[in-house]
Amino acid sequence: MSTTQSAPAQLGPGATIGILGGGQLGRMMAAAASRLGIRAHIYAPEATSPAFDVAAHHTVGSYDDAAALKRFAAAVNCITYEFENVPAATVAVLKDRIPVRPGERALEVCQDRLREKELAVSVGVATAPYADISNFGDLKAAIAALGCPCVLKTRCFGYDGKGQFVIRDLSQAETAYDAIGRQPAILEGFIDFTREVSVVAARGLDGAFKAYPVTENEHRDQILRRSVAPARLHPKTIQMAMSAAEGIGRALDYTGVFAVEFFVTGAGKDEQLLVNEIAPRVHNSGHWTQDGAETSQFEQHIRAIAGLPLGATTLRAPRVEMVNLIGDEVLNWPNLMAEPGCQVHLYGKGEPRPGRKMGHVVRLLQA
Amino acid sequence: MSTTQSAPAQLGPGATIGILGGGQLGRMMAAAASRLGIRAHIYAPEATSPAFDVAAHHTVGSYDDAAALKRFAAAVNCITYEFENVPAATVAVLKDRIPVRPGERALEVCQDRLREKELAVSVGVATAPYADISNFGDLKAAIAALGCPCVLKTRCFGYDGKGQFVIRDLSQAETAYDAIGRQPAILEGFIDFTREVSVVAARGLDGAFKAYPVTENEHRDQILRRSVAPARLHPKTIQMAMSAAEGIGRALDYTGVFAVEFFVTGAGKDEQLLVNEIAPRVHNSGHWTQDGAETSQFEQHIRAIAGLPLGATTLRAPRVEMVNLIGDEVLNWPNLMAEPGCQVHLYGKGEPRPGRKMGHVVRLLQA
Repeated sequence: MSTTQSAPAQLGPGATIGILGGGQLGRMMAAAASRLGIRAHIYAPEATSPAFDVAAHHTVGSYDDAAALKRFAAAVNCITYEFENVPAATVAVLKDRIPVRPGERALEVCQDRLREKELAVSVGVATAPYADISNFGDLKAAIAALGCPCVLKTRCFGYDGKGQFVIRDLSQAETAYDAIGRQPAILEGFIDFTREVSVVAARGLDGAFKAYPVTENEHRDQILRRSVAPARLHPKTIQMAMSAAEGIGRALDYTGVFAVEFFVTGAGKDEQLLVNEIAPRVHNSGHWTQDGAETSQFEQHIRAIAGLPLGATTLRAPRVEMVNLIGDEVLNWPNLMAEPGCQVHLYGKGEPRPGRKMGHVVRLLQA
Repeated sequence: MSTTQSAPAQLGPGATIGILGGGQLGRMMAAAASRLGIRAHIYAPEATSPAFDVAAHHTVGSYDDAAALKRFAAAVNCITYEFENVPAATVAVLKDRIPVRPGERALEVCQDRLREKELAVSVGVATAPYADISNFGDLKAAIAALGCPCVLKTRCFGYDGKGQFVIRDLSQAETAYDAIGRQPAILEGFIDFTREVSVVAARGLDGAFKAYPVTENEHRDQILRRSVAPARLHPKTIQMAMSAAEGIGRALDYTGVFAVEFFVTGAGKDEQLLVNEIAPRVHNSGHWTQDGAETSQFEQHIRAIAGLPLGATTLRAPRVEMVNLIGDEVLNWPNLMAEPGCQVHLYGKGEPRPGRKMGHVVRLLQA
């Protein structure tokens, strides 16, 4: 029997929000919820999850432990997640018991690069040229059609560059297909982009839409290194980015914070945006909102999924910069804490392994 | 055997700070610590303490349970507190095991209105005229000397107006002395003040001093109702307030955030400040710093007691307002959350009893 319908439309102080995933995103969502008097219950498989440190309750459980998931659902008023690869079976157990926000559709689409691209196209937003790859014949034909270089990507469970292979000439086709495990894939034409930008936006339970200013992002080794908001774009391009995010949110019937990553090609009035990825969750390129916007993306997400009014997304400074602390970079914390106006955020993770996001800093800039 | 000397001078990510007291101040300190990658362990007698919701660990224990306190001390790297009435015996158990910051001296002085006044005087800061009351004879003599109205206050454990009696004429002396339980007391001359202001400041482990702009406070029924920073005072008065706070911090050999409350008399160049109270902890009149200053008082306190550099205390707007939500006022949360730019902070307390601080809002004002 479904109890979803009996859930209150608006959650307020005293409610408990369940969060799947115990990393830094869950941690910062839990801290944001506490400001609103809302408790967090974290569900994660790892016994030492950073999010446990700021949550009223936590469950150490695997995502396929139906009994533990049912107990979790019974203990909370609403469930959300910090990562887009929540297994469909996990959501199936939860969704008939308690609202899961954002819902199944967002996960289905965002877990699959092909469906993600098709959704963007369906709302009139451009993407890189792509082809659906079901077998090796598809791949050879697509390489011929899209030209080299091109990028082979698994349809599912890609994250921070894993499950991708750059093909520089046709002879690499077999190597590439093997490298991604001969899974269902897409081939993407190579985009000669000048910049990468993203829109972090929220959609309320009532369909209200609010976006933060477009953010410009720099990656290194396929990991986000630095974000600056607002991105320096032509006003027409900004309008295009906002419309794209709003259209995507509507098409997904989305509730919560999400991010749309774009490649920018051309310059000035000729700037074009191509959707790269849709992330159905709070996003690293929105971390600057913690200190740089009136409402942080974490509070905004809690507001959205709780059915509360969305908060203001205005900037608190002319320009805001966020820099990730990756691996050993976190060891610089004493200097960062001594830097005037540098807002330090550390995730409480143990060992600073290479490539591991250990924290970030936010700086409010005057120009 | 003391292990204090082996404690590291600087605590960083991964450290655990113990907090005595589980109310909203402990809660907001714990949340602030989490930003710096520092865990909180809350020690409080009440099984449902708001601070537990955002702390990595908690202990439900009474302040006279020596065994529980010893276990607590063994589990943390440093101990602080959210209320000034920590019993001396509690500190005695803890202090030989682990640093307690701010230390014993701050508690001894701030738990005793007479010693508090004497400390202010010793550093050249004015107070209301007062007299030490050890017996009823002292009281009668003091009333004659200071005149009516005057205020009889117990030396110890005063909080939000409890343990005080306003004497309007000499005939009330006996009633007043009975009302405060014939305890050691002080009699204070009535001050015809125009305003109440406070300085919230921090002193680092290295003696560094940083103060937030002076804050103007409005009380209702002896509970803080509203604070606005910066207070509109003559520049000379601001300088006086800063010097007073710095002198008091130095005299207490203080580490952490503290507040000095002043009465303001006169106007313009003739403004005078009289110390009313010293609070050896984060303070309600500093809540505006959460959104209105570069570093919140909660993070500042964690920085100070952890031996980290103090953060910038600059304002984020021309003027910042904080309004407490007392009792039923919290029921207005849906409207407050819908108000653009209104930062809502709720404490996760259950029932909104009259006089109970349930939350507060912060507004950044443009003038």
